[in-house]
Amino acid sequence: MTITDTTTWTSARLKQVDKEYVIHSWSVQGKLDPIPVAGGSGSWFWDYDGRRYLDFQSQLVNLNLGHQHPRLVEAIRAQAEQLCYIGPGFAERSRAELAEMMAGLTPGDLKMSFFTTGGAAANENAVRLARHVTGRQKVIARYRSYHGATAGAMSLTGDPRRWAAEPGMSGVVRMLDPYTYRCPAGHPDPCPVCSGGPHLEEILRYENPETVAAVIVEPVTGTNGLLYPPDGYLRSLREVCDRYGILLIFDEVMAGFGRTGEWFACDHWDVVPDILTTAKGLNSGYVPLGAMTVSARISEWLRDNMFWGGLTYAGHPLACASGVASLRIMQDEGVVDNARAMGERLGAGLAELAGRHPSIGEIRGRGLFYGVELVRDRDTREPLVPFNAKGAAAAPVGRLLKAAMQRGVYLTANFNVLRLTPPLIINAEEIDLALGVLDEVLDLADEHYQN
Amino acid sequence: MTITDTTTWTSARLKQVDKEYVIHSWSVQGKLDPIPVAGGSGSWFWDYDGRRYLDFQSQLVNLNLGHQHPRLVEAIRAQAEQLCYIGPGFAERSRAELAEMMAGLTPGDLKMSFFTTGGAAANENAVRLARHVTGRQKVIARYRSYHGATAGAMSLTGDPRRWAAEPGMSGVVRMLDPYTYRCPAGHPDPCPVCSGGPHLEEILRYENPETVAAVIVEPVTGTNGLLYPPDGYLRSLREVCDRYGILLIFDEVMAGFGRTGEWFACDHWDVVPDILTTAKGLNSGYVPLGAMTVSARISEWLRDNMFWGGLTYAGHPLACASGVASLRIMQDEGVVDNARAMGERLGAGLAELAGRHPSIGEIRGRGLFYGVELVRDRDTREPLVPFNAKGAAAAPVGRLLKAAMQRGVYLTANFNVLRLTPPLIINAEEIDLALGVLDEVLDLADEHYQN
Repeated sequence: MTITDTTTWTSARLKQVDKEYVIHSWSVQGKLDPIPVAGGSGSWFWDYDGRRYLDFQSQLVNLNLGHQHPRLVEAIRAQAEQLCYIGPGFAERSRAELAEMMAGLTPGDLKMSFFTTGGAAANENAVRLARHVTGRQKVIARYRSYHGATAGAMSLTGDPRRWAAEPGMSGVVRMLDPYTYRCPAGHPDPCPVCSGGPHLEEILRYENPETVAAVIVEPVTGTNGLLYPPDGYLRSLREVCDRYGILLIFDEVMAGFGRTGEWFACDHWDVVPDILTTAKGLNSGYVPLGAMTVSARISEWLRDNMFWGGLTYAGHPLACASGVASLRIMQDEGVVDNARAMGERLGAGLAELAGRHPSIGEIRGRGLFYGVELVRDRDTREPLVPFNAKGAAAAPVGRLLKAAMQRGVYLTANFNVLRLTPPLIINAEEIDLALGVLDEVLDLADEHYQN
Repeated sequence: MTITDTTTWTSARLKQVDKEYVIHSWSVQGKLDPIPVAGGSGSWFWDYDGRRYLDFQSQLVNLNLGHQHPRLVEAIRAQAEQLCYIGPGFAERSRAELAEMMAGLTPGDLKMSFFTTGGAAANENAVRLARHVTGRQKVIARYRSYHGATAGAMSLTGDPRRWAAEPGMSGVVRMLDPYTYRCPAGHPDPCPVCSGGPHLEEILRYENPETVAAVIVEPVTGTNGLLYPPDGYLRSLREVCDRYGILLIFDEVMAGFGRTGEWFACDHWDVVPDILTTAKGLNSGYVPLGAMTVSARISEWLRDNMFWGGLTYAGHPLACASGVASLRIMQDEGVVDNARAMGERLGAGLAELAGRHPSIGEIRGRGLFYGVELVRDRDTREPLVPFNAKGAAAAPVGRLLKAAMQRGVYLTANFNVLRLTPPLIINAEEIDLALGVLDEVLDLADEHYQN
């Protein structure tokens, strides 16, 4: 029952203590050799040896305002000194202020908000609330989705990580994705899956629409491949949901807050959900925070009906204050405009790279939310590495990511899809730097090209 | 798409904005009239009119160090200025430091830690990990328990809130509680339920022990009635678990970190779990944080096997730094000793009140984790309000809590059980003040006494 003396920390000591005591996410612990990070600023972070990395991921696509934004840090300091915590049963200023701002920023008539500690809990609450509002039980979700790691949220996804969390919550039905480049329906013309409504209608026919509480989708799929829906897709889902009294939940945990060059991804298509869930870019994750924002109709419903959700850190003042500051910074500093402008520069640069690198099969993106699909053959579209690739099978992409890191650019991938999601405050010079490194490391992908 | 101007905040404006835009936990929103809280310090918080309340709850039993502890606020400021966030895949100092401290502080051979944003996610990860380590699926939990509100955690509890979250995660089997005052088995001598092992053995006989991954209990039940197990109970569970290769999970989200007058509640009985989950008192909730700490054996297992858990805010640097500071403060300022000493004072005072107030049926507590069971009759033990009481049925307790609040003491209850769980930094004068108010308001409970 003693606390070890921890007065001196070097890179070596940090690595040793981390290895001995810290459990890292989604990993075999013995195989890890994590970089000890000493600090960050803007689009960059650095290790204990002073090596700097351009963060072309925004970490887990959450640092929309980049590392250590001074105004955001200052807002955390100010709230910490005023009031770190008060229970969810009281009225508290930062919580109320953020809720009011969310009503103003989110599309349509989205109104009241419930604040959680992240996206998973926001989605858990959205599903539970949808069940209560409709009096129905089933939820329709998509295979290529990710909604978080708690039992309810994980049950929604088709990500392989779900396999390790079964049996989970029952009542989930899955539909296919509008993944036009690899359409699961073979993409006939017109395609029932990629146009949305027809595929959903067919599933409802077999499930009974009167048993379905909600359809939950990421308007733009994040983790699982950066998939943009064809124009009309979301509206088509909206119409089918309305026809059957089914609630439409948009998970914009990753795509929200300027990531796609609009405040919310659904703004691109002018479709409004009944429930919107957010986290990550809401406050760049400087303090754990998520939100569920509901329509005026559901807000009215909640006036007279029990909201069956809660957590100790619901509406956490320190977290909400960082959300308030983050939204102000986004407005004051034109962050969404910058995301759009830098996204155009990134898109143009990637198009140019596609001319030189045959391994680029498809480029998908808007704003700073880009996916680059790497293939062994543009005709057959054989992916550079297969779905759920591990170990040696994943090496062709792993080698590329490692080469980028050695050149000072931090990249990740979902199997064969590179994820390019830098902070929204990135500048032209940094975009060009990353494009230069991509140009070099894509040669490694080209080596596997078949033709 | 505009952010409302929010430059001036008064009590009235806060109440109006809160009412219009904030969804509060576990409530019919239209029935709420939350107090606008302006600040807090030590054992006190105050509203916008300067009315002060002695926080005899530590909010949701999380503010072990009280409101706005200066050293803890300072640690948050310092870490915020250094590094608010880095992804869970990197090595980071505050995360490693907290993990190392946890290994030192927690009992037995508990070693590696995974840090979440709260207790629910810690329990979700504990159950999933237990399933993987054992290769089994079922989990045994108790009715009078509470483990959090996400689908997996909520499925474990017998709290009525679970009813609103079904269907949840499958594979949960429930056992009865060692609630000696109202023993669900009629408390024969010896009592199979209250001695632990015999009751668990019987359930295992019908469930097949080889299908059971874990038994999860709060060593001392918090929310659902402040229930202390008889001596020998936890050891008896430990022995049965060991006999069948079942993992024992202790949820000390509420009872941990000095709350019961020891660092951990299980220290009272010298029983060590395979997995310990914590949150709340870990950092007083100043930043959302939870932890799962696992035995040396499971730590070894994790070296060679995949850990199938993760979240964006796993091992959050700002949260972990507040955890490090909190544990240091607890050691430096003798907080556990104070909890023990003040608990003795509280216990003695309550015993005295029981002499004057027949409505006190039983007093249960150690440290600053007390429950006072209110009854209409000491012989029949008829509770002052029934289980799951709402509205008029709950009024006899509601009136008492309101009267205490009017006298400046913040209290809550689980149906007929008053929860007395002040900050661990409370002083003798404040304990006495609360006892004085209790003496007054218990008259309201006595009015319902039958004899």
